[in-house]
Amino acid sequence: MALDRLIEKIEQTQNPTVAGLDPKLDYVPEFIKRKCFEKYGETLKGAAKALFVFNKGLIDALCDIVPAVKPQAAYYEMYGVAGMKTLYKTQEYARSKGMYVITDAKRNDIGTTMEAYATAHLGKVKVGKNEFEPFLGDALTVNGYLGTDGIKPLLSVCKENDKGIFVLAKTSNPSSGELQDKTVDGVPIYELMGKMCEEWGRELPGVYGYSGVGIVAGATYPEQIARLRELLPHTFFLIPGYGAQGASAKDISAAFDKNGLGGIVNSSRGIMCAYQKEKCSEREFADAARREAIRMREEIMDFVGKITTSRG
Amino acid sequence: MALDRLIEKIEQTQNPTVAGLDPKLDYVPEFIKRKCFEKYGETLKGAAKALFVFNKGLIDALCDIVPAVKPQAAYYEMYGVAGMKTLYKTQEYARSKGMYVITDAKRNDIGTTMEAYATAHLGKVKVGKNEFEPFLGDALTVNGYLGTDGIKPLLSVCKENDKGIFVLAKTSNPSSGELQDKTVDGVPIYELMGKMCEEWGRELPGVYGYSGVGIVAGATYPEQIARLRELLPHTFFLIPGYGAQGASAKDISAAFDKNGLGGIVNSSRGIMCAYQKEKCSEREFADAARREAIRMREEIMDFVGKITTSRG
Repeated sequence: MALDRLIEKIEQTQNPTVAGLDPKLDYVPEFIKRKCFEKYGETLKGAAKALFVFNKGLIDALCDIVPAVKPQAAYYEMYGVAGMKTLYKTQEYARSKGMYVITDAKRNDIGTTMEAYATAHLGKVKVGKNEFEPFLGDALTVNGYLGTDGIKPLLSVCKENDKGIFVLAKTSNPSSGELQDKTVDGVPIYELMGKMCEEWGRELPGVYGYSGVGIVAGATYPEQIARLRELLPHTFFLIPGYGAQGASAKDISAAFDKNGLGGIVNSSRGIMCAYQKEKCSEREFADAARREAIRMREEIMDFVGKITTSRG
Repeated sequence: MALDRLIEKIEQTQNPTVAGLDPKLDYVPEFIKRKCFEKYGETLKGAAKALFVFNKGLIDALCDIVPAVKPQAAYYEMYGVAGMKTLYKTQEYARSKGMYVITDAKRNDIGTTMEAYATAHLGKVKVGKNEFEPFLGDALTVNGYLGTDGIKPLLSVCKENDKGIFVLAKTSNPSSGELQDKTVDGVPIYELMGKMCEEWGRELPGVYGYSGVGIVAGATYPEQIARLRELLPHTFFLIPGYGAQGASAKDISAAFDKNGLGGIVNSSRGIMCAYQKEKCSEREFADAARREAIRMREEIMDFVGKITTSRG
C-alpha cells in the first residue's frame, strides 16, 4: 500500500535516489540516433525509437543500484503518439527490471476527468469484457491547485491498485515563490498545500509511517524542506533540483528521518548526460550514467546514514 | 496573433461557445462501439477508434455553427497510446473542418520541460532536417502554480506559432476555493493568478484587445467572473461549468464586454450526450448534439448581444 513498495526498494538498494528519464534528442548519443534514423527516417517514430534505445541502456545500467525511474511525460509528448509509445515501453521495461516507476506528469483536473487521469496513469480501464493498463506508473506527480476535488479521485485508484501520488508543494524553480511563498494568515501556500497532503494521506496509510500521498519539495529550498518535514511527519518527499539545478546533498538532508527514510532525490540530466560531462566515448553512456549514479548515492548517503524499515 | 483567430471564429459564427470533446466510452452510441469492437476487438485500439468515430460525427454536426472544440486530454490518455492517436486525429479533423482547437490538458512544469510541453501541444519539434507538429492544438490550458518559470516558455512558442494559452484562475469545482479563495493581504489567490496572466499577456497582445494569455474562470462562480472581468481588461475567459455543472447563461454574462467579446463558454456532456437526454435514437446523436448546441447558443446570445470585432 501507499508508497511502501518504493520504500522497500530504497531500503534494498540503500539508495534514496531516482533517475529522471527526460530524454531530449540532444542527450541521445549519435550512434543511437544514426541507427534509428537509418531504419525509421528522421521522423517522430525514428526519434521515439532512439529515445527508447537510450532509456533501455540507462535502465540496464541502473536497475540493480537505483530503486526508481522518473520519466517526465513532457519529453515523450514532444514526439507525439510515437513518443507516448516510448513512454509506455520505457515504463514497461523499467518495471520488467524491477524498478519503481514515478510518472512525472503533474496532471490535474476535477471529478470524472481526474478519475480518467488516475485510470490512465495508475489504474486499469475497462473495454467491454477486458481490462487494460493504459500507462504503467507506480506513482504519479499531480498539481493540487484545484483542491480536494482534484485529489480524491486519485485516492481510490491508488487504494485499489497499490499506487501513490506526489503533489506539488514547493517546486525547485526560481519563481516558485511567486505563488507558493505567498502567505495566508501568515502561513505560506506551500505549507497549506503540504498540510492538505498530510490530510489526504490519511486515506492511504503506509506500513513504514509514510502515506501514499507524497509531496514534491525542491532541493533548492533547504529551509522549506526542513520546515515541511517538521510539519508533515507522514508525508514522503520527492526532491528535484539536485545537481543540475544547483542543490547539494546537504541541502536535502533535512527531508530524512532517523531511519534514513522520508525522501527520494531526483537527478535527470546529471545521470543521462554523464557521458557528455565525463567527455568519454558516447558508446560508454550507460557506464558513465552508472558511475554518476554511484557517486550521487555515496554523496547523499553520507548525509542520510543507513536506511532501514525496521521499527526497532 | 494571440487568441485573435478564435475571436474571429466566434464573431463569424456569432457563437461564444466551445464543444468539449470528453468522450467516455459510456457516451458513445452502441452501434459505433459494436462496429469498432467487431473490427478491432474489445481492445484499447477498438475503444480509441470508437471515440474517433463519435468525435468525427460531432465535429461534422457542429463545425458550421460552433467555433471551437475542446478535447480533454485525460479521456484520450485513458485509452493509452491508441487514445493519444485519437486525440491527434480528432484535432486534425477539427482543424480540417475549420474549427479552433483548445487542448484541455492543464499542463505545467518549468523551464525546458515546460518548453517540451509547449512544443508538444502548440509548436513544432525538429527531428534531423524535418519538423513535425506532435499534437495540433491552437490553444492549451495550463496550470500556473509554478509561477512565471512555468509560463514564459509557452509565450515564445505561442508567438512563433500564432497560438494561445488559458491559465487556471478560478476553476468551476466545489472545492476550488480551498486554495484559490484563500487571501494574500486581502486578495484572493485566483485574483493574483489572474493579475499574473494579465501581466504575462503583455507579451502576446491581440488586435481585438485580448491577449494570448487567457484564464479559466468557472461559470459556477458568477461573482468571481464579474470581479475578474473588472480587473483583467485584456484577458479572455474560457468558462467551464455551464449546463451539467449547474451554471446558467446569466451566470456567465459578466465575462462579456459591450462588443460581446471576452469569453467562450464550454459544454461537454450537454452536447455529447444530448441524444441520451432527448431519449432519441442513438443514431441521431449528431443531430441531437447540433440541436443542443443551437439551444445553448441562443440561450447565451440572449445575454451577450451581437458579437462584433469592429472598434467603431
